[in-house]
Amino acid sequence: MNGAESLIKTLVDSGVEVCFTNPGTSEMHFVAALDEVEGMRCVLCLFEGVVSGAAHGYAVMARKPASTLLHLGPGLGNALANVHNARKGHVPVVNIVGDHATYHLEYDAPLTSDIEAIAGPVSHWVYSSTAAEDIARDAAVAVQQAGHGQVATLILPADVSWGDNPNGAAAPAELPALTAVASDRIERAQAMLRSGKQTVIMIGGREVSAAQGEQLSRIAQASGARVLTETFPSRVRRGAGTAAIERLPYLAELAIEELKGTEQLILLGADAPVSFFAYPNVPSVLTPPDCEVLPLAGPDDDIDGALAALVKALQAGDIAPQLRPLQLPEAPVGALDANSAAQALAHHLPEDAIVVDEGITSGLACFPVTAGARPHDWLNLTGGSIGWGLPAAVGAAIAQPDRKVVCLEGDGSAMYTIQSLWTMAREQLDVTVVLFNNRKYSVLEVEFARTGARGGKPGPKAASSLAIGSPDMDFQAMASGMGVRATVATTAEEFSEQLADAMAHRGPCLIDARVPPLELGW
Amino acid sequence: MNGAESLIKTLVDSGVEVCFTNPGTSEMHFVAALDEVEGMRCVLCLFEGVVSGAAHGYAVMARKPASTLLHLGPGLGNALANVHNARKGHVPVVNIVGDHATYHLEYDAPLTSDIEAIAGPVSHWVYSSTAAEDIARDAAVAVQQAGHGQVATLILPADVSWGDNPNGAAAPAELPALTAVASDRIERAQAMLRSGKQTVIMIGGREVSAAQGEQLSRIAQASGARVLTETFPSRVRRGAGTAAIERLPYLAELAIEELKGTEQLILLGADAPVSFFAYPNVPSVLTPPDCEVLPLAGPDDDIDGALAALVKALQAGDIAPQLRPLQLPEAPVGALDANSAAQALAHHLPEDAIVVDEGITSGLACFPVTAGARPHDWLNLTGGSIGWGLPAAVGAAIAQPDRKVVCLEGDGSAMYTIQSLWTMAREQLDVTVVLFNNRKYSVLEVEFARTGARGGKPGPKAASSLAIGSPDMDFQAMASGMGVRATVATTAEEFSEQLADAMAHRGPCLIDARVPPLELGW
Repeated sequence: MNGAESLIKTLVDSGVEVCFTNPGTSEMHFVAALDEVEGMRCVLCLFEGVVSGAAHGYAVMARKPASTLLHLGPGLGNALANVHNARKGHVPVVNIVGDHATYHLEYDAPLTSDIEAIAGPVSHWVYSSTAAEDIARDAAVAVQQAGHGQVATLILPADVSWGDNPNGAAAPAELPALTAVASDRIERAQAMLRSGKQTVIMIGGREVSAAQGEQLSRIAQASGARVLTETFPSRVRRGAGTAAIERLPYLAELAIEELKGTEQLILLGADAPVSFFAYPNVPSVLTPPDCEVLPLAGPDDDIDGALAALVKALQAGDIAPQLRPLQLPEAPVGALDANSAAQALAHHLPEDAIVVDEGITSGLACFPVTAGARPHDWLNLTGGSIGWGLPAAVGAAIAQPDRKVVCLEGDGSAMYTIQSLWTMAREQLDVTVVLFNNRKYSVLEVEFARTGARGGKPGPKAASSLAIGSPDMDFQAMASGMGVRATVATTAEEFSEQLADAMAHRGPCLIDARVPPLELGW
Repeated sequence: MNGAESLIKTLVDSGVEVCFTNPGTSEMHFVAALDEVEGMRCVLCLFEGVVSGAAHGYAVMARKPASTLLHLGPGLGNALANVHNARKGHVPVVNIVGDHATYHLEYDAPLTSDIEAIAGPVSHWVYSSTAAEDIARDAAVAVQQAGHGQVATLILPADVSWGDNPNGAAAPAELPALTAVASDRIERAQAMLRSGKQTVIMIGGREVSAAQGEQLSRIAQASGARVLTETFPSRVRRGAGTAAIERLPYLAELAIEELKGTEQLILLGADAPVSFFAYPNVPSVLTPPDCEVLPLAGPDDDIDGALAALVKALQAGDIAPQLRPLQLPEAPVGALDANSAAQALAHHLPEDAIVVDEGITSGLACFPVTAGARPHDWLNLTGGSIGWGLPAAVGAAIAQPDRKVVCLEGDGSAMYTIQSLWTMAREQLDVTVVLFNNRKYSVLEVEFARTGARGGKPGPKAASSLAIGSPDMDFQAMASGMGVRATVATTAEEFSEQLADAMAHRGPCLIDARVPPLELGW
């Protein structure tokens, strides 16, 4: 068994059964080993940003890591933006980055780079294997490090891959257990909830489950606390029959308003809320200055255990959680815009769908109106780095082949990783892409105004830099060029019909929804 | 004048007049400043890999840096692969990477990352500005550092951008002069050339000019030395009327054969030749073990001066250089493959064209047959990181709007930065993309065989990982979706006609050339 074979066998034995790949020469022995070792599904992507985003979507929905296979430093660079998103979202990923043979590095060949240095800022753990007989053990450590929500990057020199490993596969990795929350923190949280002060509980981290929503509803009813999720939690269960929780608004101005008067903030899996960006004369910290903040549980802590302890202490176990009734809007008619599209989405979304939201300004309308839609999971962009949605939909569909994936995608954001469509076609994934085509970096028009640059109103060059409608992009043509069936919708009726059709049939498709950009009144 | 305005004015005053951009919120004051300061052309790209590759192509053809505008660490990550190529090719680039406001960094907002750490491995110089009053000076230093062939990355926090800079623009940067080659090295080279031993002169670095080719021809005739370029020099002048120089083969096995018996190697701008990748049982160093290697001049040294000194010492000034006659093959007929496509290219290539070569296996055929084509510049992928060709063509066309750019592109490599087509359409660039569509990562089939993995023959999973024809990609559809006129060629006659038409008309177009992959005889 060579190094690559022992590596793959160790990954598979540890439950890492999918590898999203974009290989090069230095990875050829890894690629060869896929035919020698049973059990690894290999998903080819045409660009490394698709690889890393797909690993993100997979891990969020499978609740375990996939692996990625990347080609040297530049391949990792191409993957970096979505690895960043995984790191920020506490999403487990095992990156395998091929490198030159150890003895070849000193010659500084054209593709030589400092892979460890590139990996460092986006990884919790980086290690470069040095010998074929160690690689299986190193792989097990990588899986363990990825654990529940970390990015582990294992660098695999070509000679470590092709060298003989007499040790064979290593013992499978054991995922680390969640850390129990210390009793003094739970007691402090109890005291805060009993204090009568204005209290907010904010939950986030890897996943906000239906059960957590119900427990939070009990706690809220028993204590009078308000419950929010962080702005962009990785995964939230919501819709009819869930205790759907509002989220903290994205805009700092609105978030500050939302948290106004809050005297106590209890954090579960979430960080203390700060502004996404800095703006002149807007504070970075969103809580009131005198608000007491208790980080009750981090993303790797036993949040369920902490919630159970609070419910028990508040004697709230018998309280019925407040669950959303099914509230389906009518199918929309008339003009197609973000609101009517959102209405159609809420109307047609099938039970147990997975919504991947990178709809940016147009996607904003979809969130509130689907609170009463059929129950579903909602995936968010956790690290703010655009180009995540289409790849994440690829990964989610591979993790959950029996569920419909709906990817809400902006035209601008789609173009960072448009190659994802090809993998959707190749793997015949059950993904419907709702492409909000408004021919603008609409969010940047909003942000331009918020930063106050040039009085908030772009001049001609700046306006041109935020407009992507010249030339107009035809996503139907691009999608069909990559093997994905696509339609164009220009009215609410067309969009609704096309969406209904997409929900009724399996397989990848794209709806190019021609919507107007946000109206800023310039 | 705010920081961003003083920065842009300093760049423009220093001759950096083009900015390839993909901005985000933290860059909005820079974007606003484009309307306040005269002279900066802003070229919007839909993905940062296009930004950095375009800056590469621009700098190679303009012989001076462009700037890039990138959004935080992830934006730089997306740009990284082509920044790597620039670094390896001695191509000057000034990257401006926006960051959060200095005071906002401590809050670790979602898009916070260690930009300096990400920039380090691909930059010669990295600096994060700390105050608006310093940013103009910092920009001048960045341009100076970029100098002739370096990557300078300047990090621009949002508050440095929007803060007031009472100092205004800084004094323009002065580009560093080339370093004269030390006389003892020149004397050693002279002695080597007079020794009667088997000697090779290998030239590379930033550019191999027509004048350098002529000088090398004189030296070769006077001394009996052979002349080669490195495998992938940034830019080479070649074709009819030039002393077109053969290049060192890519395949290590062939390069070793080419250099067999060489007793002395004189390097001008090039590094000592090493294998692109490591392979079991193939040496990393390509020169014979006992070959004396003299690094006569580095890429930042005065190569012209060194050549003049050698010509003088060899009394070769009056020798007529051996120039290629015009040798145009007939327009091809029959089956379309890499060879017939190459024949059509050589037949139709107009005078002073710029060829950007990322044709990979299909492009290999184009190089030898164009040695006698009308004179042209040939640009190579210097760092081996795929996804460079289309963006570099964008940049080259912006630098040289009156010359035809022909981009030889593989189907696999095109898909890393396919978004480039949109910028070609937006700017109506005079680029013809010859898209070799062979539905394979054909080079990886070759590399798989060379690494000897699984006896050199892929199993089913490996073979599937190297095949990109399922689904088949329709580049005509993709190009038209981004506003670029495209045609499909399935015979040599069709290809030749479409190429002739493309050469005769201005503006962007793409020919989807359906060619068979390399036949490996499996």
